[in-house]
Amino acid sequence: MQKAKAAFAATVFLASGALAQTPPAPNGIAFPKDYKDWKVLAVSQRADSNTMRVIVGNDVAVAAARAGKTNPWPEGAVLGKVVWKPAKDPLWAPATVPGDVVHIEFMEKNSKRFAMTGNWGYSRWRGAKLEPHGKDAGFAQECAGCHNAAQSQDFVFTRPAALP
Amino acid sequence: MQKAKAAFAATVFLASGALAQTPPAPNGIAFPKDYKDWKVLAVSQRADSNTMRVIVGNDVAVAAARAGKTNPWPEGAVLGKVVWKPAKDPLWAPATVPGDVVHIEFMEKNSKRFAMTGNWGYSRWRGAKLEPHGKDAGFAQECAGCHNAAQSQDFVFTRPAALP
Repeated sequence: MQKAKAAFAATVFLASGALAQTPPAPNGIAFPKDYKDWKVLAVSQRADSNTMRVIVGNDVAVAAARAGKTNPWPEGAVLGKVVWKPAKDPLWAPATVPGDVVHIEFMEKNSKRFAMTGNWGYSRWRGAKLEPHGKDAGFAQECAGCHNAAQSQDFVFTRPAALP
Repeated sequence: MQKAKAAFAATVFLASGALAQTPPAPNGIAFPKDYKDWKVLAVSQRADSNTMRVIVGNDVAVAAARAGKTNPWPEGAVLGKVVWKPAKDPLWAPATVPGDVVHIEFMEKNSKRFAMTGNWGYSRWRGAKLEPHGKDAGFAQECAGCHNAAQSQDFVFTRPAALP
């Protein structure tokens, strides 16, 4: 009886785990499932891609931001960015609010594992279905290439916003 | 010796506490010091006030948002909104990022205490110095008046953004 119960529980666990699993990025980075519990670092808008964003950080990143020690960011810091298409607020015409999810992306500081891409490991999952971006591990070179524009800020565009 | 140490510690505690204290709003609502640790509900932009915002929630609000139970929001839910003037990103011309803090504002659901303003208690602190907004408790009528436009959403403009 006890054994049957345990077997049943294990089956249910595996089944739901399989359904909920998001595939890793092609460079092996796993999707950080707990990112919704991370804290705010900043927001941004981009006219070139017509998107709005929030940038959150894991505990290491948030501690560094609050201490003003983000150039360089410490090892273990992870920044996450949720990117939305803008939508009109139906209740307040001049306001723009998040619409569909474009993608969610992360950069994590690990100078041993990601020395080839400026000491940062890049990952991105597309849309609400969280489809991994990139055909192979080389996709991260494209990320790193663009982030070269932020070399003066340890390759990170985000500057933590003032939080009073 | 032990006594002197305790007295010294108490003095230091009081002194730093006094310096760090933010005055309450005129309707008695205290500044929620831990809001930086709250989680993201949404972002928004407003063309009418030329501002960009992040909206965060306390644990009650975030649990309600994740469960899709926000109409009405539960008792004890608190939403916080940090409002910035936009600034140009010096490293990426088409991007707009947070500049100076305009204000930070909160609304908390408490149908007993705030029945006069649609069951929500409003508060706002201005600028980086966190100066309480409003000359007397009547200021909240102005907040509630504007929030009437969101009566169909329990007086809350924010709809939680999709977080994949």
